[in-house]
Amino acid sequence: MSYVRDAWYVVAWSKDLARERPFAISVMNEPIVVWRSQSGALAAFEDRCIHRLAPLSLGRCEGERLRCMYHGFLYDRAGHVIDIPGENRIPSKMRLRTYPVTERHGWVWIWMGASDAADEGLIPPVIGTDDPEYVLGTGQLDYAAGARLVNENLLDLSHVRFLHAGSIPMSAMWPQEAPEFTRNERSVRTEWWLRNTLCGGSGESPGTRCDFYSCSDFYVPGILIVKDKLFAVGAANSPGPTDADLARPFTVVNHAVTPLSDRRTRYFYSTGPHRDYGDGMERKRDILLEIAERAFAEDRAMIEGQQGIIDSLPRRRFNPTSNDRGVLLFNEIVEKLTDAQTTQ
Amino acid sequence: MSYVRDAWYVVAWSKDLARERPFAISVMNEPIVVWRSQSGALAAFEDRCIHRLAPLSLGRCEGERLRCMYHGFLYDRAGHVIDIPGENRIPSKMRLRTYPVTERHGWVWIWMGASDAADEGLIPPVIGTDDPEYVLGTGQLDYAAGARLVNENLLDLSHVRFLHAGSIPMSAMWPQEAPEFTRNERSVRTEWWLRNTLCGGSGESPGTRCDFYSCSDFYVPGILIVKDKLFAVGAANSPGPTDADLARPFTVVNHAVTPLSDRRTRYFYSTGPHRDYGDGMERKRDILLEIAERAFAEDRAMIEGQQGIIDSLPRRRFNPTSNDRGVLLFNEIVEKLTDAQTTQ
Amino acid sequence: MSYVRDAWYVVAWSKDLARERPFAISVMNEPIVVWRSQSGALAAFEDRCIHRLAPLSLGRCEGERLRCMYHGFLYDRAGHVIDIPGENRIPSKMRLRTYPVTERHGWVWIWMGASDAADEGLIPPVIGTDDPEYVLGTGQLDYAAGARLVNENLLDLSHVRFLHAGSIPMSAMWPQEAPEFTRNERSVRTEWWLRNTLCGGSGESPGTRCDFYSCSDFYVPGILIVKDKLFAVGAANSPGPTDADLARPFTVVNHAVTPLSDRRTRYFYSTGPHRDYGDGMERKRDILLEIAERAFAEDRAMIEGQQGIIDSLPRRRFNPTSNDRGVLLFNEIVEKLTDAQTTQ
Repeated sequence: MSYVRDAWYVVAWSKDLARERPFAISVMNEPIVVWRSQSGALAAFEDRCIHRLAPLSLGRCEGERLRCMYHGFLYDRAGHVIDIPGENRIPSKMRLRTYPVTERHGWVWIWMGASDAADEGLIPPVIGTDDPEYVLGTGQLDYAAGARLVNENLLDLSHVRFLHAGSIPMSAMWPQEAPEFTRNERSVRTEWWLRNTLCGGSGESPGTRCDFYSCSDFYVPGILIVKDKLFAVGAANSPGPTDADLARPFTVVNHAVTPLSDRRTRYFYSTGPHRDYGDGMERKRDILLEIAERAFAEDRAMIEGQQGIIDSLPRRRFNPTSNDRGVLLFNEIVEKLTDAQTTQ
Repeated sequence: MSYVRDAWYVVAWSKDLARERPFAISVMNEPIVVWRSQSGALAAFEDRCIHRLAPLSLGRCEGERLRCMYHGFLYDRAGHVIDIPGENRIPSKMRLRTYPVTERHGWVWIWMGASDAADEGLIPPVIGTDDPEYVLGTGQLDYAAGARLVNENLLDLSHVRFLHAGSIPMSAMWPQEAPEFTRNERSVRTEWWLRNTLCGGSGESPGTRCDFYSCSDFYVPGILIVKDKLFAVGAANSPGPTDADLARPFTVVNHAVTPLSDRRTRYFYSTGPHRDYGDGMERKRDILLEIAERAFAEDRAMIEGQQGIIDSLPRRRFNPTSNDRGVLLFNEIVEKLTDAQTTQ
Repeated sequence: MSYVRDAWYVVAWSKDLARERPFAISVMNEPIVVWRSQSGALAAFEDRCIHRLAPLSLGRCEGERLRCMYHGFLYDRAGHVIDIPGENRIPSKMRLRTYPVTERHGWVWIWMGASDAADEGLIPPVIGTDDPEYVLGTGQLDYAAGARLVNENLLDLSHVRFLHAGSIPMSAMWPQEAPEFTRNERSVRTEWWLRNTLCGGSGESPGTRCDFYSCSDFYVPGILIVKDKLFAVGAANSPGPTDADLARPFTVVNHAVTPLSDRRTRYFYSTGPHRDYGDGMERKRDILLEIAERAFAEDRAMIEGQQGIIDSLPRRRFNPTSNDRGVLLFNEIVEKLTDAQTTQ
């Protein structure tokens, strides 16, 4: 399966990208330097000096410009060479490949398709660390496995009952009934209910029961927003939550999956409760973050093992079940978008 | 050279394969999970869940069954899928590849050929750790080299004089005269004498002399049984030991060479004296084990170096000498068996 | 670009090659054992025993001979097999590939072309650690990058101003004016002046000014000799230093770049002042050595990064500038020599 190039990929936390500190990453095997100028503006280049392919990520930021520190080529934010030490004339064709880059929701995003097709409207509606309504903790980790396997892990939450039996509370009850899947233009929605359950860990008084509702939106290229909410017992039988119901308060988990290379994936996440949660919200955030850390370590061990088996047995195929409905819908979207995309 | 598939490979010590603790290994690059059920029965599967190729070695034993802990597929000991969470119907074709597995002589063995060709009569007559007549110590190590190189090391003991000059007692005298080689159906026998030698380290009174006799049987796929015995001076001139003479007491060394992959080999060994050896038998075992550990470390350094040279100089060929007679006979057996075998 | 095979490569410091201690190296991916016999004579063989490709570098020197310590093949210094344990007859064709080897200027050199083309007159005129006129310190390091990138680093000293801004004194002024390049048969000379500059660190009284002159000769396959000298202010305007002027005193830096494999390079260097420098010469040597260590660590980080980018972006090409004049001249020499060479 190909990667969707006409999409925004998370490459860093906004908070981690300091001014004048160029940062190296690869996306889909392409080395990229992302940097924030003295004034705070972002730029993203192919991470190679035009001269001799030295990494610009080892370069020096000079105000609004980036200097290669091997032989001194100087670039402006648009990737034009504007100084070559010892040369009077600069060939006009000397321009770096640049990537559209922006920041939104506390993340730095790069567009991997043709620059003129970049549309910030396609950035998924993540609940960001900059959202004043939420108290979020953050984390990240790298997987020695392809992004597709990480995406498919997140698209089929039936694994929670087994893989996270020891880390996620109530996982044995996940999902109590079959989830409902909806395919949208660039995302798959998965909704499910846990009816008449104990409101464990939610700050309610002990013994209180509720209908627990979970809504996951998985967007191209690999952005997952999970919103959970507790409703009064019986709500699951109603036509379901309205958009207003879902507006707040939630606990949320945001995930961003970025393919560094065919066998290496970076995974960013944040989680926490709405501020309306009240006095215990920092503690709730810490509990959710600890659960996420334990669970994602379990995911990583399984997915890296799975990648190893796939590499050992290249002729073996997957055999999807009805739980893979979300995976299949998402892969249909990927196929449609890669067929139509601006660059290959 | 191909591997003999119609043969039994050692994958573990019986003592190390606990109940309900699935164990991962690869043989000839094939990932395999070996597990012992709650009742103690053995099973060996291709180590991939039919669903999405997650490793079953990360799974959970449930009585007589094995559960994939990614999305919960459940398998019986014959490799049939008997539960898929969320599915009512299980396609009948859903069956794992299984491997015949058995335990004998303290080792767990897997048959790599077609299952219906598996014949336990082909397991070599190793002196096992379960043999009440012997006091054996055990060890194992991995080589970053192909199994063929390890086998050929064990088939040409002329290396002992050089490689183990500092670790094996009397190695300078090995072999005093040319060994005698016999090719059998699935093994090569190598016999040699050391005449009128000091019975060093054998518990005899100092200065006693003897004829030392060594008999090595190297079986397909890579099982070596070495039996040493001391005889009265002059015995080497007689027609040679009878089967009764060889029956006991010996010191023995058992070796099992298992190709994990083309460049990785697992090596299991045990060594020790017959119980008739008397009071010093535990100490004798410890001495033999220490010698083996030192010698096998020397073998590993040489063989891994040899593998590196072979990989650097792919066009260079071996130039056999008369000492390679055992190697050549064994390779003839391998060629004949691989030509005839049930699967490729 | 190919390697020049008809050339001498540095493989070790003379001081490091002890008698009867075989030493393993690879040059251009070829495993080589270099050894010094009991009498002190040098030999270099392909590092594989004719028998079974065991590394001879794990062998034992026996007087003027080298014994493979796997099964005991014995070789004379010319690479002939002269003993095979257990064999009476030795096939006459059994001879190792040998490499011409010599030592000069404190280094051990190997000729990688046809043996009968080996010409010691082609060893570059390095200022050796055995030169009584100089007080030299030495160092070496390995790069995870191809030799070509290391050579090109040394051929374009315009990088000093940027990469070594924090390690090499006065680097910001390097070079004050464009260097002059001269292409010779097997080397490129690069000369440049720093006019009317402070004689920093040169032992002159503070505030003294001078014309600083630097002369770099870069020889095939990758030997660089840098000689620096201070002249009275105004000397740069004269026709330039005569050979007599350059004879002494200099500070010198000698570099030798040896391709171990396509992605691994060994780098040997020495530096120090002429003895006429006077009382501070040991301290001057230590200062120069410290500068070299810091600078070469900077080079290594940049060049390894550059190699990584080249491997990630195989279709990207270099875009030379006028500073690459020395690189281009040298590559012309390499191309001419590889076209004409005795072996490929």
